[in-house]
Amino acid sequence: MANSRPKVAIIGAGFAGMSAIRALRNAPVDITVIDRNNYYTFQPLLYQVATALLEPNEVARSVRASLRRQRNVEFVLAGVTGISWEHRAVLLDDGSSVSFDYLIQAAGSAYNHFGIPGVAENAFFLKTLTEANNLRSHILTQFERASREPELIDDGLLEFVIIGGGPTGVEMAGALVELFDRVLPRDFPGLDVSRARVHLVEALPRLLSTYHESLSRHAEQVLSRRGVQLHLGTALEELSGDTALFRGGLALRSKTVIWAAGVRASQLAGKIDSPTGRANRLTVNDDLSLPGRRFAFAAGDIVGAIGPEERVYPQVGQVAIQQGRFAARQILQLLRGAETDRFEYRDRGNMAIVGRNSGVAELSPRLGGLRFSGFLGFLAWLFIHLVYLPGHRNRFGALLSWAIHYVTFDRHARLITRMEPSKGDWENRQ
Amino acid sequence: MANSRPKVAIIGAGFAGMSAIRALRNAPVDITVIDRNNYYTFQPLLYQVATALLEPNEVARSVRASLRRQRNVEFVLAGVTGISWEHRAVLLDDGSSVSFDYLIQAAGSAYNHFGIPGVAENAFFLKTLTEANNLRSHILTQFERASREPELIDDGLLEFVIIGGGPTGVEMAGALVELFDRVLPRDFPGLDVSRARVHLVEALPRLLSTYHESLSRHAEQVLSRRGVQLHLGTALEELSGDTALFRGGLALRSKTVIWAAGVRASQLAGKIDSPTGRANRLTVNDDLSLPGRRFAFAAGDIVGAIGPEERVYPQVGQVAIQQGRFAARQILQLLRGAETDRFEYRDRGNMAIVGRNSGVAELSPRLGGLRFSGFLGFLAWLFIHLVYLPGHRNRFGALLSWAIHYVTFDRHARLITRMEPSKGDWENRQ
Repeated sequence: MANSRPKVAIIGAGFAGMSAIRALRNAPVDITVIDRNNYYTFQPLLYQVATALLEPNEVARSVRASLRRQRNVEFVLAGVTGISWEHRAVLLDDGSSVSFDYLIQAAGSAYNHFGIPGVAENAFFLKTLTEANNLRSHILTQFERASREPELIDDGLLEFVIIGGGPTGVEMAGALVELFDRVLPRDFPGLDVSRARVHLVEALPRLLSTYHESLSRHAEQVLSRRGVQLHLGTALEELSGDTALFRGGLALRSKTVIWAAGVRASQLAGKIDSPTGRANRLTVNDDLSLPGRRFAFAAGDIVGAIGPEERVYPQVGQVAIQQGRFAARQILQLLRGAETDRFEYRDRGNMAIVGRNSGVAELSPRLGGLRFSGFLGFLAWLFIHLVYLPGHRNRFGALLSWAIHYVTFDRHARLITRMEPSKGDWENRQ
Repeated sequence: MANSRPKVAIIGAGFAGMSAIRALRNAPVDITVIDRNNYYTFQPLLYQVATALLEPNEVARSVRASLRRQRNVEFVLAGVTGISWEHRAVLLDDGSSVSFDYLIQAAGSAYNHFGIPGVAENAFFLKTLTEANNLRSHILTQFERASREPELIDDGLLEFVIIGGGPTGVEMAGALVELFDRVLPRDFPGLDVSRARVHLVEALPRLLSTYHESLSRHAEQVLSRRGVQLHLGTALEELSGDTALFRGGLALRSKTVIWAAGVRASQLAGKIDSPTGRANRLTVNDDLSLPGRRFAFAAGDIVGAIGPEERVYPQVGQVAIQQGRFAARQILQLLRGAETDRFEYRDRGNMAIVGRNSGVAELSPRLGGLRFSGFLGFLAWLFIHLVYLPGHRNRFGALLSWAIHYVTFDRHARLITRMEPSKGDWENRQ
């Protein structure tokens, strides 16, 4: 790689970062991508890791393995501590730095617990591989304990509370009841597994509040029928080690409260001397560049209000992928001396799986606004997730696990192991 | 399960414990098996986890999943702290206990570092899933560091030292050079991976000293040709954080010294008020019962001198499987009021893989004493390990990984994750 080529630094190897890299595949630039893990994670399937259906390695892939065929990119395993705009360099936690001519800031998101006391300390999270792995181990450990000391069940040992009725909460709840109904009774013949309960709590009056109302109804009906206790219009007030207190007086004793209620931008957004808005998200121009810095772009979950109209998009993979690719293309246009464009999000729709044989999906109005629920939604979900899952080996492994589970109701991923937190797992909660 | 049936407690869900359980499948007894992990590990393949060929979950299986079809067994996830012979109870680290009429002590082995200073603190080990996973992450991290700071290579960053030229050491050395030769150069195009070196150190004058000499020669030739530095007749004297010192003056700078030189019996052998001999192994009668306790048996790596002739067998899976089954059968004979038998080991032979297309195998003299090396040894090894690997899903996954690796030279298991040590990992080193 010639030294005279422009240098592009990309912070974060998530959906946005990886899609930017791919868009620069044949470009005459030298890319450096920085991430604190050597793998990228397919976050939409983490709930299946937490519920013993997939193994951690099946939803993650080595960044280097993914980039092998692309010659103009280098990977750096490090945490980012800030940016020196003066030297145009990304500062790393090992004391070194990566200099750049162009930057794509795609550091992603962290948890937003809205200042509710006790969440950061006591809740389980579901955003990183280690969190999903450790949540799985925690859940299985509760059943091991209950089988030795059934009297602890009265103290809420087998009560599982999910805070947040968006897609993540709905999918997690559906997968969890299925684990309890179908898989664990065979593992614990001496334990009355039917005493385990899943609570799904949502502050708004319906699940999947961004979806069409008919899909919310479908999800609510399916989950209720399968035994999930729904608590709608119920807002968390405080969380202690073994009780969740809600506004209005509801209290749930539980050793397992899972946070699926909100994200904000990564801590890093606040450390780069660029304006941020709600939930710490970066304010950007219509072309996704940072105000006053035409050479620096943001993409993905870290992006907040866009342009003078202050457009805000949801923090989902689809947006991140499109923004990563878009930001990469703007850099190419600047290199050619051309003007940059205005980012337009092409919404394809939404989908969530509610459980076995049942999903909900809606195409965007642009694509006809069609809505499915039930088995067709389930199939649509399977297909899309299989296509987007990174790596042939992972795709094959997931398909195999799904098929085995579908036919035998068995889930193979039942090892209790604890991973040390990734760098930043704790930071993400603060 | 009726309360009046005799209770059999089994300590350890390893090769010996699991084979004992299977032998009692249709017996009129109630079995409790105790292990500190909820999975059992196929130890012979851990070196493939450490060298990025297999994922941790591919060589382990949930104990409960394995025992699902057997009705007379219960699993307890706990550490064992001792045995109360007076109350005939196994004491657990959660303060509870498991009472028994018959016992099989199959707690396995720990490391034997022969009192060499620095080994417990500085060496990497390869006996548990977490150790194998963390060794893999450590190895990959060295290359990540070298790619950022190549000057560290001069300080031994890419020197990998394996202590012990038995089957584990030989297999690890072969897999490691292959990882460096074939896989990592594509991941690190900017790094001169050929500077990475593997040293295999053996105190005795030849590798695989328990095998026929012609097989030792074969292994030595193959490994040398593939670039492994052999240091035969070289004994470790001391280990510091970055240097291994050997008797005779050899010093190797390395941040990665892997201990494959010896095991002794689990700590637990010394805590049950029963005589032990060399390497803390339990002294047992000809029928594997503990001296003076006809109802308590030992099986597997924890067993030392057997009977008045003080027969000692190697600490390998084959012996453990046969002893577990044998001990279970003695319990059945006691239940019938019959005499117990004398344990006889039926040696089938030995095998080790030296690397791609090359293995060594020898059948025991009893079976004709045939020896293979090269491709035939490689195939024999593959076949045997596939047959013994627990779980269809694992067998399929391993076969797939091996096939992909064989054809493409790629290894998919390259995530850097750190598992928290299993209970007892540290204890095992002391």
